[in-house]
Amino acid sequence: MKTPRIVIVGAGFGGLQVAQSLASSGLDVCLIDRHNYHTFVPLLYQVATSQLEPEYIAYPIRTILRRFSGKRYQKQPKTRFLWAEVQRIDFTAQIVQTDGCAIAYDFLVLATGSKTQYLGVTGAAEYAFPIGNLAASVRLRHRILSCLELASQELDPDIRQQLLTFTIVGGGATGVEMAGGVIEMLRGKLRRDYPTLDLQSVRLILVQSGDRLLREFPEKLGVYTYKKLTKLGVEIYLKTRVSQVTPASVYLDNKEVIPSATVIWTAGSEANVPQTSQEIPIAKKGKLLVHPTLQLQEHSNVYAIGDLSHIEPNHIPLSGVAPEALQQGVRVARNIQRQLRGKSPQPFSYFNKGRLAIIGCYSGVCKIGNFELTGLLPWLMWLAVHLIYLPGYRSRLFVLLTWLYTYLLGDRAVRLILTISDI
Amino acid sequence: MKTPRIVIVGAGFGGLQVAQSLASSGLDVCLIDRHNYHTFVPLLYQVATSQLEPEYIAYPIRTILRRFSGKRYQKQPKTRFLWAEVQRIDFTAQIVQTDGCAIAYDFLVLATGSKTQYLGVTGAAEYAFPIGNLAASVRLRHRILSCLELASQELDPDIRQQLLTFTIVGGGATGVEMAGGVIEMLRGKLRRDYPTLDLQSVRLILVQSGDRLLREFPEKLGVYTYKKLTKLGVEIYLKTRVSQVTPASVYLDNKEVIPSATVIWTAGSEANVPQTSQEIPIAKKGKLLVHPTLQLQEHSNVYAIGDLSHIEPNHIPLSGVAPEALQQGVRVARNIQRQLRGKSPQPFSYFNKGRLAIIGCYSGVCKIGNFELTGLLPWLMWLAVHLIYLPGYRSRLFVLLTWLYTYLLGDRAVRLILTISDI
Repeated sequence: MKTPRIVIVGAGFGGLQVAQSLASSGLDVCLIDRHNYHTFVPLLYQVATSQLEPEYIAYPIRTILRRFSGKRYQKQPKTRFLWAEVQRIDFTAQIVQTDGCAIAYDFLVLATGSKTQYLGVTGAAEYAFPIGNLAASVRLRHRILSCLELASQELDPDIRQQLLTFTIVGGGATGVEMAGGVIEMLRGKLRRDYPTLDLQSVRLILVQSGDRLLREFPEKLGVYTYKKLTKLGVEIYLKTRVSQVTPASVYLDNKEVIPSATVIWTAGSEANVPQTSQEIPIAKKGKLLVHPTLQLQEHSNVYAIGDLSHIEPNHIPLSGVAPEALQQGVRVARNIQRQLRGKSPQPFSYFNKGRLAIIGCYSGVCKIGNFELTGLLPWLMWLAVHLIYLPGYRSRLFVLLTWLYTYLLGDRAVRLILTISDI
Repeated sequence: MKTPRIVIVGAGFGGLQVAQSLASSGLDVCLIDRHNYHTFVPLLYQVATSQLEPEYIAYPIRTILRRFSGKRYQKQPKTRFLWAEVQRIDFTAQIVQTDGCAIAYDFLVLATGSKTQYLGVTGAAEYAFPIGNLAASVRLRHRILSCLELASQELDPDIRQQLLTFTIVGGGATGVEMAGGVIEMLRGKLRRDYPTLDLQSVRLILVQSGDRLLREFPEKLGVYTYKKLTKLGVEIYLKTRVSQVTPASVYLDNKEVIPSATVIWTAGSEANVPQTSQEIPIAKKGKLLVHPTLQLQEHSNVYAIGDLSHIEPNHIPLSGVAPEALQQGVRVARNIQRQLRGKSPQPFSYFNKGRLAIIGCYSGVCKIGNFELTGLLPWLMWLAVHLIYLPGYRSRLFVLLTWLYTYLLGDRAVRLILTISDI
């Protein structure tokens, strides 16, 4: 009998976890991603704010797979990686069509995550800077550094102020950490590199549509975050929406126009659904509707996990964080093995270990069970947890050394502007 | 009296040295570069071969200047940096026109280095990969890794072989170190990441027009290098020229056509002369003719150094290495100060400390005075010397750790393919 083949699309937290959980099963596993690296998304904001080298938080998928499988890998690789862009999935023929080749599957796991959604705001897609992936974060780093360089040459005070005004759209965890990251960056030794520039005049604006920050956390922690960021000099607009973005300004729905050369977009996301041969039921934010077992509603051999899927009926409110995708990955691997043994798949249940968010400048917030903490301790916990989960010993060592360098010496190491035309 | 202003164009080894030597002079110095970082060129080949992060060998110019000037910098910056592209130099009006602004000078130092020259070979500019700057080296890294990925998916054996054939054009120090770097890369743990790929079938070809490698070294060392690289599996063509490069093949002047998807160009360079208001005398390779004092022949307040200049009458044969540019930078700084004191500039004399070249795989060659060495010792010396000269303590520590990681564990850390469309 032919070994059943499992094809996994997407090597984010969820997809990679499925591959890891299946590594010692002896099944024929093929993991497809359009990048040759896995991105450790929680640290992207540190790439965007000149703190970490992109290489530290992006790990070669092949090396991760090799380590899962141990020494047997060399002789009998059961888990393969395919660097390709998926073009279309045919549920009837059970084929994944990529730009290079077509792959037949017995079981399919869709884990293609989410992409930025600009919520219909005019100009946002063209002029705002998202930070959802590695290339976008590097691009934003180049933008922030370029604005400082251009401002230091600019004689017109209005244009200079515009270059030194950074607007962050969205007051969730990503918006808050970006605000803290930019503040840390500009308060550090970087300041000394621009002696002719008054970095006190930098305006950092955070626009949030809701009535408080960090809506996924208890109110008290959102209020703490608001106070902390305000104290650090961030101008926060609550209950405010962005109505337009231009290369020079951001327009708010309260008719205010803020001259701001850089608009950082953290406000919306939607599921990144691959093209399929048949219509599949879609929930809010474009997510695929799945059973509690994580199977697609009409295809029992196709699973969808992470930011891509919405469970219905939904007994567990999910918020799109890495632990959910990881736990779903484990569940899917078990369910596929159950199906292969003729058993029925089991529903996913999420074990919530708690939730952490980093503000920056030695502050964070956390909620573990009924405990709520603010300040230095959750900040340290955030760093420690992310260091532990980061793939690769070398990356961990280098990130640790870089953090010591950054937080003890106040310096930022990564400051190249490699412009688009350069590469 | 107005403080005289010295404008330096180019922040390579030469230009930066002029700025450093003038840092404590109290003169008004403006350093212009089109990048915001100084590139440590000798280690570019390690960026191209997945060994070092680009950030380690590219250092922010502003930070270097700040460190030159010490604590006074914050209050009274005398050395400024301008991130701009020079468009035209007007010797009569004494103005440097950039894409952003125009700067008047009293003294001008041109240190814009060299650029790749394709020697009229058809297709070379379009399809060959140069490694002369940081962006080009990153691009070449992406190319080498992409070829491995594509080869591992390829079913046609001819196309697979073509993807696995790398041709290096040029047998000077850069060509030799690239050959060694690629060999090291493919022999290390990277191999294990491609279990389905037979990396034994990789062909690495080095094409050299002259009758031996490393012509800038004594013959014995060139012969050693030839033997060493041949033993490592490099196919070396001496007395051979490339006549055409296509996306799929390289054509040699002996009528041989080698199917090779990647052609690495290290064969030619020419001076990167900025546009000027008046014609200036040019020597071979487009270099500016300068007096032994390094002044332009018709403009006593304009100096040219490094790869940009050719000294006439020429008592010292120069070969375009960093120590020459550094020593010329010191000379120029002194000559400008002499001119300001009403004294006449002195001719440049080069103190040759010796010459090192790295082959890779624990081998190098060196010539110091009449001593010639080959093997492990010059390899270690090469690494040590370049570690010492690398700017920044953090970069030095991280490069040292990376080398220990690479050479002790045989692994390569930097393996992202960030494609052009990504950034």
